[in-house]
Amino acid sequence: MNIDQSLENQIQELGLLIFEKKQKASGSKLNKDYWAEKLMGYSMRYPEFKIELFRLVDVLPSLTKWQQVSEHLRDFLLRDEAGAPAVVRAILSVALSNKWTSWIAAKIFKKNILAMAQNFITGEDSHRAHKNLEKLWNSGQCFTVDILGEAAVSENEAEHYKNKYLELIEGLPAKVSDWKANPKIEKSPWGFVPRANVSVKCSSLYSQIDNLNFRNSVDAIKTRLAEILRAAVQRGVFVNLDMEQFDYREIIMTVAEELFCSDEFKNYPHLGIVVQAYLKTSLGDIDRIVSWAQTRQTPLSIRLVKGAYWDYEVMQAKQRHWPVPVFQEKSATDANYEQCAKKILESYPKIHAAFGSHNVRSLSFAASYAEQRLRLPRNAYEFQMLYGMADPFKKAVKKLDFRLRDYAPVGEMLPGMAYLVRRLLENTSNEGFLRASFFDKKAVNELLKNPIYKIENKLNHNEETQNMAFKNEAFQDFSQANVRAQMEMALKNLQKELPLKCPVVINGVKKENTETLNVQNPSRTSETVCVTSLATEMHAKEAIDTCVKAMKTWSHVDVKDRIAMLRKAAQIMRDRKSELTATLVYEVAKSFREADADICEGIDFCDYYAQEMERLTDPKSMGSTSGELNQYLYRARGPALVIAPWNFPFAILCGMAVGPLVAGNTVILKPAEQSSGVAEKLYSILREAGIPGEALQLLPGKGEVVGAYLVKHPQVHIVNFTGSRAVGLWILENAAKVVPGQKHIKKVVIELGGKNAMIIDEDADLDEAVAASIQSFVGFQGQKCSALSRVLVHESLYDRYKERLKESLKSISIGPAENPSHRVGPVIDEESQKRILGVVERNKSKIVAQVPVPESLAGQGHYVPPTVFEESDANSELGQVEFFGPLMALFKVGSFDEAVQIMNGTDYALTGGIFSRSPTVLARARKEIEVGNLYINRGITGALVYKQPFGGFKLSGAGGKAGGPDYLLNFLEPQTVCENTARRGFAPEKT
Amino acid sequence: MNIDQSLENQIQELGLLIFEKKQKASGSKLNKDYWAEKLMGYSMRYPEFKIELFRLVDVLPSLTKWQQVSEHLRDFLLRDEAGAPAVVRAILSVALSNKWTSWIAAKIFKKNILAMAQNFITGEDSHRAHKNLEKLWNSGQCFTVDILGEAAVSENEAEHYKNKYLELIEGLPAKVSDWKANPKIEKSPWGFVPRANVSVKCSSLYSQIDNLNFRNSVDAIKTRLAEILRAAVQRGVFVNLDMEQFDYREIIMTVAEELFCSDEFKNYPHLGIVVQAYLKTSLGDIDRIVSWAQTRQTPLSIRLVKGAYWDYEVMQAKQRHWPVPVFQEKSATDANYEQCAKKILESYPKIHAAFGSHNVRSLSFAASYAEQRLRLPRNAYEFQMLYGMADPFKKAVKKLDFRLRDYAPVGEMLPGMAYLVRRLLENTSNEGFLRASFFDKKAVNELLKNPIYKIENKLNHNEETQNMAFKNEAFQDFSQANVRAQMEMALKNLQKELPLKCPVVINGVKKENTETLNVQNPSRTSETVCVTSLATEMHAKEAIDTCVKAMKTWSHVDVKDRIAMLRKAAQIMRDRKSELTATLVYEVAKSFREADADICEGIDFCDYYAQEMERLTDPKSMGSTSGELNQYLYRARGPALVIAPWNFPFAILCGMAVGPLVAGNTVILKPAEQSSGVAEKLYSILREAGIPGEALQLLPGKGEVVGAYLVKHPQVHIVNFTGSRAVGLWILENAAKVVPGQKHIKKVVIELGGKNAMIIDEDADLDEAVAASIQSFVGFQGQKCSALSRVLVHESLYDRYKERLKESLKSISIGPAENPSHRVGPVIDEESQKRILGVVERNKSKIVAQVPVPESLAGQGHYVPPTVFEESDANSELGQVEFFGPLMALFKVGSFDEAVQIMNGTDYALTGGIFSRSPTVLARARKEIEVGNLYINRGITGALVYKQPFGGFKLSGAGGKAGGPDYLLNFLEPQTVCENTARRGFAPEKT
Repeated sequence: MNIDQSLENQIQELGLLIFEKKQKASGSKLNKDYWAEKLMGYSMRYPEFKIELFRLVDVLPSLTKWQQVSEHLRDFLLRDEAGAPAVVRAILSVALSNKWTSWIAAKIFKKNILAMAQNFITGEDSHRAHKNLEKLWNSGQCFTVDILGEAAVSENEAEHYKNKYLELIEGLPAKVSDWKANPKIEKSPWGFVPRANVSVKCSSLYSQIDNLNFRNSVDAIKTRLAEILRAAVQRGVFVNLDMEQFDYREIIMTVAEELFCSDEFKNYPHLGIVVQAYLKTSLGDIDRIVSWAQTRQTPLSIRLVKGAYWDYEVMQAKQRHWPVPVFQEKSATDANYEQCAKKILESYPKIHAAFGSHNVRSLSFAASYAEQRLRLPRNAYEFQMLYGMADPFKKAVKKLDFRLRDYAPVGEMLPGMAYLVRRLLENTSNEGFLRASFFDKKAVNELLKNPIYKIENKLNHNEETQNMAFKNEAFQDFSQANVRAQMEMALKNLQKELPLKCPVVINGVKKENTETLNVQNPSRTSETVCVTSLATEMHAKEAIDTCVKAMKTWSHVDVKDRIAMLRKAAQIMRDRKSELTATLVYEVAKSFREADADICEGIDFCDYYAQEMERLTDPKSMGSTSGELNQYLYRARGPALVIAPWNFPFAILCGMAVGPLVAGNTVILKPAEQSSGVAEKLYSILREAGIPGEALQLLPGKGEVVGAYLVKHPQVHIVNFTGSRAVGLWILENAAKVVPGQKHIKKVVIELGGKNAMIIDEDADLDEAVAASIQSFVGFQGQKCSALSRVLVHESLYDRYKERLKESLKSISIGPAENPSHRVGPVIDEESQKRILGVVERNKSKIVAQVPVPESLAGQGHYVPPTVFEESDANSELGQVEFFGPLMALFKVGSFDEAVQIMNGTDYALTGGIFSRSPTVLARARKEIEVGNLYINRGITGALVYKQPFGGFKLSGAGGKAGGPDYLLNFLEPQTVCENTARRGFAPEKT
Repeated sequence: MNIDQSLENQIQELGLLIFEKKQKASGSKLNKDYWAEKLMGYSMRYPEFKIELFRLVDVLPSLTKWQQVSEHLRDFLLRDEAGAPAVVRAILSVALSNKWTSWIAAKIFKKNILAMAQNFITGEDSHRAHKNLEKLWNSGQCFTVDILGEAAVSENEAEHYKNKYLELIEGLPAKVSDWKANPKIEKSPWGFVPRANVSVKCSSLYSQIDNLNFRNSVDAIKTRLAEILRAAVQRGVFVNLDMEQFDYREIIMTVAEELFCSDEFKNYPHLGIVVQAYLKTSLGDIDRIVSWAQTRQTPLSIRLVKGAYWDYEVMQAKQRHWPVPVFQEKSATDANYEQCAKKILESYPKIHAAFGSHNVRSLSFAASYAEQRLRLPRNAYEFQMLYGMADPFKKAVKKLDFRLRDYAPVGEMLPGMAYLVRRLLENTSNEGFLRASFFDKKAVNELLKNPIYKIENKLNHNEETQNMAFKNEAFQDFSQANVRAQMEMALKNLQKELPLKCPVVINGVKKENTETLNVQNPSRTSETVCVTSLATEMHAKEAIDTCVKAMKTWSHVDVKDRIAMLRKAAQIMRDRKSELTATLVYEVAKSFREADADICEGIDFCDYYAQEMERLTDPKSMGSTSGELNQYLYRARGPALVIAPWNFPFAILCGMAVGPLVAGNTVILKPAEQSSGVAEKLYSILREAGIPGEALQLLPGKGEVVGAYLVKHPQVHIVNFTGSRAVGLWILENAAKVVPGQKHIKKVVIELGGKNAMIIDEDADLDEAVAASIQSFVGFQGQKCSALSRVLVHESLYDRYKERLKESLKSISIGPAENPSHRVGPVIDEESQKRILGVVERNKSKIVAQVPVPESLAGQGHYVPPTVFEESDANSELGQVEFFGPLMALFKVGSFDEAVQIMNGTDYALTGGIFSRSPTVLARARKEIEVGNLYINRGITGALVYKQPFGGFKLSGAGGKAGGPDYLLNFLEPQTVCENTARRGFAPEKT
């Protein structure tokens, strides 16, 4: 028998033994609760119902009135598409048919869900949890306490969490010290194991955690965590750092490394951290932790888990087009768990192992390996399971003298509902061990089977398939140190090149001796970022003449070549991404992340319009029959004037230009003078990509001069404008006049402003709503057409929302854009600054929250304080005027109807959003909210090309939505060609 | 052995005998000519090459210079997609590589094609044919002479054809009388068979043949044919009427019936007619002919053929959505041939049979049936085959003592090329007997197999599949007597109801006591067709207020219901088609056919936009990933003002209204006052179909009053205008001004005029070009946006074109629209009449052809003379101004380049066409001709919904093409909805 076979035999033996003991221990139930057991069963049988049920559980904490509960019951479970089992439908239909029984149903439902939650939560506070913890202890097992709660959206809340941990650490030792001794779980080869054991979530200790702001995030967490560790050291409490989303992994690992290896804590042996076996990085993570243990010369603990955020990680990665960090097949994770377990056990005694899993195979593997290969006693490591789950297995392993620790959450039931949902998901997961053994009742030998990787090919294959179609350019992943370093380097390099130059370029020739203007860095007005030329009417005339002439060649260039040029431009942008991003940071004071998104969007426009043009180029066959070929196709229009704003200096200018270009039209670029440097870089890239000088003219300067001249010019065919309403309407009116010499009707595409609102309805998820509204209103200092400026909050949670918002705003820092620790930078120029400060001054009596501009920034740049107002008059300045700055007004509303009325009550219809978890309300929102881009349960900015085509109606604009399937039609003339293909009664078979 | 089996045995025996004799007679060649044999072989092996080759043969007659021939050789056979065999490509590549060898290649090709044609044509004129006919006679067979030629596009040409027939009949007897006697082919049971035998094509005897103008067509043909028959009777010549396209069948049958049964000819026994066995009507046709024979009491001959227009008939029927008149499977035709043969033989001796076929099975069947069942001697019927084809079979049947007659064409080689193409097609047809026996070399027993019907199911199945998608409403088939009668009845009934009334209707309520206006019948101004109310500004205000209010309900009506209303409206229109058609005939003086097309187009708009709305209603998923649902959808805009013209009083008003309506917008109908009666009927139909009164307002009256008011109204969202350029540009300018109270940007869709041209290039098919240009310029008196007003003719065929055009115009008759014999009616009103007469007067020196208005119409209606001018200045009034009347200017051009330059040299870009058979020129035309609707080798009017979406650019209009896939987008606002569907890290699997 070879060595592997002998290990495998032992694994199987131990596994069978656990199953045997488990059988004896109890029945085959997942949950001791009848009601829970029943619902779990339905959920597993009816997947749609499962989603609805879990969503209902998720929203339950926010439903304060019984009517809301019964409405949501109906909404979630009685809709046709909810797929509820017949018996559930029948009971609910009757129960919800009148008020009295509805009340009962609501009460029963809520009570039962709370009861379900109680299965998984030890108590509402540490005091009440105490009894359950003692029960656990008396049943022969130990625990680690975890604090449940909402997200920390403000420093206030983070401080609050820290205090809760401190309270726990300070109180627990006294309580547990009275409990009777149990050497089986207290003794280990290295001595006594602390009874008091606490699990800490780093994300709850800092509200502004952000990879981009990496150093600050690490430092802030370290500060609070150090306090906690100090308390733990004082009282001999074990502290374990939980691992959370992959996004936070590098921050948490760095925090752990820097604190655990610090002089203050390197000698404390009761510290641990989690490794998630579903991560492709997990074996490397263990190596890192082992190296810390070596530095410390004191042991560290590792809790090895599979990982609880699998769905989330896959979702996030796919949405961002980042590599999926987790194994996508369950068996791969299971196999990797065994590899990790080996590595951890082999690091004994530097590392103490805890195996967190309900999977008997995984636990058997760890124990067998420890015993057979390493000859470790059973108390040299421990098993961990979740409180309230897998009880029969727990009994079994205890009987076999393993040290078992429960992961024991403490916290209020309702906010803890999120935790309940995660546990329900785990219990009912198609691939979960618990479901397989309790519900699906799989054979034991099947359950104990050696997991095998079979993943590599599938992954690659998937990625190839995706490559065929348009894919959004992935944002930079600032969790990677090299990405952050590259960004800093790009900033440094660019600084040396300043000032940039933006000349007038016509027919590929730079115009000399033009008047110029200095474009300043908004963060530091002493710095000139670009010296831009100011085009004259004469230049404009020459530019349009060149464009008219070039139509004859450019419109006849093989469309495949034009498409290839866009793709090449995208590639050049990708290659120069850091440099371009840095340019935006200096020239318009975008933050790294916003600037990165701006460049990515430019790349997306090129790739998407290239793909769209491919689609539109093929003539559509229109019901051709034998003998008649009918085709519908598109042809170029004529010269396009592109007047772009400074707020997406790269993306919007790029999209507005490459759309007409790929369609075969020649283009005059009229960028905003505030972002001329960026414009010149775009121009150069397009030229480098192959667009000839005759087809693309660069006319920087004042809109009043060249814009006005060209809008009225008889040879301009298209005016593609994004900017202010006043200018837009002027263009609309003037371009509509057919002037002498004009032989066509001008096409005007205008994207103007917005007065965007977000509804926060009574069952909204406040954690998310607060974060989303802040991001939507302060992102790029509110200088987005899509920015949030009105929040319509239901009265039932108005005060809570306002409070959390105020607290959350306190943690926002203001300063120069190139420093990633500043979430808010300056606005574009002095004029903007004055205008915004004027609004604040006029409405100062209505201010409820404001982030003050630090004194230190005085006189340095165009800074304004992000300000939240409270307003009751929807027709006031705060309710109607677009500010283009970080200003936002809160409106308290009594109902969804009122909210919609206020929302729709402006001249604009650009973006808007709603936070609600009621299917009925969301369906109404889709119908009734009048906006071009509606966002549900997320922020209202950040539209992605193709995924969220962007643009509004009413006075927000006219013209197909940018980045959408109708956009290129703006720049094309449809044409029908009908050919009689028959000759003398014969025709090709297929035409 | 049963009776059928014994017949079958005899058929097989005779068939085998024929094959045996054929083997002895010669080899297995289709053609005696090596070159022909070779090309036939390639054609059968390479189907794409076959099409190109035959097209090249088709165009050859028009290529007068060798350069043209070599260019076309390259164009047709060397293009990649031509699929020419490698050896052909290789030879041609070398040959066409320099001028000298190109010249040789062109000469050789033309010579060889002519040689091929000579195989099938007995001689260029009757004189030269004589020798070949005598050769035939000497080889033991007889003949029937057929005259080849171009289509008769004028009465002059028809007269010319008649004279050719007369010449033939007068000359032939003298020639044939000298030939030596041959009792085998001259004697029959009823006596001597005339040696001189002529086949006549009725279509060549009248240039205006038209089912709608049924009586006139029959009479005109009868007049000329009677002359021919008289000559034949005098000289004892046999005359056979050929059967042609199915379209002409009823006319030819009626001509035959009325002449053959007339007192003058009923006693002449040497007359015959053709029955086509591929027609589903053929057995009935035989019954009809038998009944004539009974009336006559003198025998008639029937030549039974399979039919030569199969491809054409299928094509035509499918294009028109009419039932296909021919069997779609070859075996069905073969089986039906045998049924027909039986019926004809059984009518002996009243009917003398001639079996025209090369199919040995078919001939064997006929002979066996005659012999076994009817005991007829072999000279009681005859076989007919085509001159130059199937020679081995001919020898075989002659040896077996059958009387064999060749169908022997006489005519010039080049114009006869069309006949060559038909023969080539027949020789190479996949399903043809000759190909099967000579090329595919099928086994004899396979070739002699009993054909079996297996067709019914397939047909039905096909039709069902087609029903799923949009299908254009079929035009009325005026070849059916009942359809014509129905039309006449509808006219009579409507006359009694006149005058119609068109009130102002707002919110479903008719407004009383309005000012009114009498709308007169343009054909007869003494007749008032409609009394229309004149809406006031007050009405307009009330209408828009109603529309604004109704948006709240109408836009939220389930889109499925709105779609259903359009479909219901289409059904009502279908049910009331004759009445609606009649209304157009009286109110705007459209001819039956044009009026029918107008109603059909209205039906199409309803059905097509209904289908389009179904397509657009489904939200498009935009790259949604798990956890994020991105949708792109469309929503209604707001009240639409529809200002429609009188020239398509039903179709355009309907399409312009139902488009916005189905999209969820409320609509104000502002029809032209000249067609108020039609407008009221449309309004009523839409209401009857379910569109509520609040959503649709009827505002008849003057555009200057209500139109102007509403265009500027702040609550109008959409202006959908079709009409004059001046008004259109005024609307464009005024609607672009955002006025106080206006909270949106107006959408203006305008379709204006055209100055449409047609290029007739040097290799054009003149037969078709002449007919198409006349139809495009006189149809509805030129009162179409799409009407032809400039013809750009290549100098090489300018004179021929002009001559044929002039001749052809002479046969056009003018008069009241309700009389189908009048191809041209009056123009809409006095203003139009004066304007058009003014143009004629100003340009009278340039007139080359004119159809005078008959004196008898003086003072009765708004008649103008259709006039053709000759012009050389493209910038003159004739070259630039839209006349909206039956006026057309000819321009002589030296090249395609010059033609395109003139064509594109106006402010308009609506419709345009080209007649050319050069692939290179057609490819350039597609790229270079600037028109919204380009028509190749056909007329430039008559765009069908969906198949030819209609609309122009430049100053011809702006807005998606009507009846096309982008049209409804004009009336919709795109919207993006992005929903975060994830909750606590879980999301529905599929979103």
